[in-house]
Amino acid sequence: MILEIINTGSELLLGNTVNTHLSYLGQELFPLGFRVARQVTVPDGEDIRTALSESLGRAGIILVTGGLGPTTDDVTREITADLLGLPLVEDAAAWDAILQRFARRGLEVTPRNRRQAQVPLGATVLPNPNGTAPGLYLKTTGQDGSARHLFLLPGPPRELRPMFHNHVAPILRELAPGGTAIQSRRWLVIGVGESKVESLVGEALLAVPGLELGYCARSGCVEVRCIGTEEALAAAGAIIAKHLPTQVAGEGADTLEELVVGRLREIGKTLAVAESCTGGNLANRITNVPGSSEVFLQGFVTYANEAKTRALAVPSELIAAHGAVSEPAARAMAEGALRESGADFALSTTGIAGPGGGTPEKPVGTVFLALALRGGETRAVSAFYPTDRGHFKDLAVLAALDMLRAAL
Amino acid sequence: MILEIINTGSELLLGNTVNTHLSYLGQELFPLGFRVARQVTVPDGEDIRTALSESLGRAGIILVTGGLGPTTDDVTREITADLLGLPLVEDAAAWDAILQRFARRGLEVTPRNRRQAQVPLGATVLPNPNGTAPGLYLKTTGQDGSARHLFLLPGPPRELRPMFHNHVAPILRELAPGGTAIQSRRWLVIGVGESKVESLVGEALLAVPGLELGYCARSGCVEVRCIGTEEALAAAGAIIAKHLPTQVAGEGADTLEELVVGRLREIGKTLAVAESCTGGNLANRITNVPGSSEVFLQGFVTYANEAKTRALAVPSELIAAHGAVSEPAARAMAEGALRESGADFALSTTGIAGPGGGTPEKPVGTVFLALALRGGETRAVSAFYPTDRGHFKDLAVLAALDMLRAAL
Repeated sequence: MILEIINTGSELLLGNTVNTHLSYLGQELFPLGFRVARQVTVPDGEDIRTALSESLGRAGIILVTGGLGPTTDDVTREITADLLGLPLVEDAAAWDAILQRFARRGLEVTPRNRRQAQVPLGATVLPNPNGTAPGLYLKTTGQDGSARHLFLLPGPPRELRPMFHNHVAPILRELAPGGTAIQSRRWLVIGVGESKVESLVGEALLAVPGLELGYCARSGCVEVRCIGTEEALAAAGAIIAKHLPTQVAGEGADTLEELVVGRLREIGKTLAVAESCTGGNLANRITNVPGSSEVFLQGFVTYANEAKTRALAVPSELIAAHGAVSEPAARAMAEGALRESGADFALSTTGIAGPGGGTPEKPVGTVFLALALRGGETRAVSAFYPTDRGHFKDLAVLAALDMLRAAL
Repeated sequence: MILEIINTGSELLLGNTVNTHLSYLGQELFPLGFRVARQVTVPDGEDIRTALSESLGRAGIILVTGGLGPTTDDVTREITADLLGLPLVEDAAAWDAILQRFARRGLEVTPRNRRQAQVPLGATVLPNPNGTAPGLYLKTTGQDGSARHLFLLPGPPRELRPMFHNHVAPILRELAPGGTAIQSRRWLVIGVGESKVESLVGEALLAVPGLELGYCARSGCVEVRCIGTEEALAAAGAIIAKHLPTQVAGEGADTLEELVVGRLREIGKTLAVAESCTGGNLANRITNVPGSSEVFLQGFVTYANEAKTRALAVPSELIAAHGAVSEPAARAMAEGALRESGADFALSTTGIAGPGGGTPEKPVGTVFLALALRGGETRAVSAFYPTDRGHFKDLAVLAALDMLRAAL
């Protein structure tokens, strides 16, 4: 059954908000047996009608996000009812839930909120414990006589996600194409370009019957994505292991940080980080992994030079001689973090993220990374990422995590 | 002129990658005088043809991202040429740039890369110093006889962004609807629900002639977005200042961290942070702001209890008596960070991000925040965000930043 997603919201098209719905829904839908065939973003207002009408002509399942709020620019409910020729009626339970929610939070309910309890006649109300807008499920019949399943979901991710999980997924599970055993598997390949990866494994992978193959270049790595039966994926895994024996950073793990945290947990070792230019990004990425508290002891975000000296005992003479952005400083930071935290491994980063602060010798994008390990020799590398501040931080974090991965 | 965006890539629809192109392009296009009328995501392969063909029927400007890579799933070039009835020819300069890029990086060029130098006859090649895939600009004529401007851009953001900025924006500037002085302004409103915000300012704002109005609920705040002439925006600003005198956290600033860093720079004060549950997220958000090194001295990511004691001198008896997730611990952490860093302000966070670690008294989602200030009394608050790990971290960071904003 064809599934399409319609995201509504002028803030998405103006660029003020990043659309995270497609990523969340895509990942949730795949294990249920569904692929998103098309996703479209339209502004608040009448354009929702065109998009919905187009999707109703093509898809059996349509997920619409946004436009269920209390404000005048929220019109998804009204347009859907109009398009399907259904009157809007107040749902007593939905209105009651809104009243209770406001009372519980000590907030004042406004007449505008009452609109949120209006539902197209015959719709199933999907409860929203995290917001005022209830979701709606409508089953209707398309022009061709086949069923159309329409879900209207709230725009804020923290409202949409639990609603999808608790109320939409169970309905979709009933609609899922049974009997398929199609799975998806991904491999992260580090240090080899996309074209080289394909030249090493592409032909062999394409020769596996029934395997769907995709590549995606990311910051500093290439993702190889295969979709197929368990048998086909096992064959793909063998091909990748054979031709990229040292370059595959991880299989299955979504991210390098998951991989590294998982490995540290397996071997019962601990980690600390000392960050200058990455400013907490490395610690943040590591602590995003559930269970990271078992292995991550401490982070030192030593932005100022005095902080490096005070918190990590980096000698001020060393900084004076080589600069805070230097290999000796990176080594001293990692060793200081190891010593101060008592961890088994310590990573450090020091560099120039920009836009200011560059010099002819050390231009914006310069970074030094080090890895100190208990009872071993400290390693250091330098890299150059002349890009924007956020991307620089991400690339430096990835390179640091990969140093640790290689050591594990 | 209608402008549409087509994003290609199965990884976007499978949810493996968040689509950041729309957000980037939306923000860049607005000041050029363009609004994105519609954005669609299609998988790699033949679906690109349908989407492109539909957009050519509606829009004068079409930006296509992705599918220009060297691998077999990259077919945007071929499909576009076919759809427009143009032969593909090798562009000598593009091939030379690819060869030079590989030579410079010491990488082996593969025959597959040669495909990337193939361009539809008559296309203008847009250089890509950050990757192998050159961009393409094609000017053609639609069925209705009016011009169609088609841009094919690479998928990786770090290739697309500089190419857009350096090569696409200058062309679009020539095509821009002249004489308009339409601007966009946003206000971040904290601590008031979306419906309440509209009930306070909505009617007055809608009465401003020519003002386009939108609301967007975000984690812990509401964004009010107005589009109009300078005069209309000034009127909107006056209305918002009158009816939401204490709730507007910022105008113009994209984020609370920009606002706080900007304010600290203005008054010449410095900041340190001590993080437990937010694990570096707070430091990372602050250091994402260019120029934050002027005000941000140091971050302490004290995940383990021993780290809190060692780095921040939080007494182990205090942790034993109240727990590491407690108001006294939050206060001691903030005061420790102030003392150890020498900063003027110090924020702290301690809580239970989950999914594990909750207890009946302190369930997952519990968080304590404190703000210590030089020569003032430490403040502390508690909050409860029973949500997923990533969102919990974001909400706690927002609440901490808002404590500091209120104090400034």
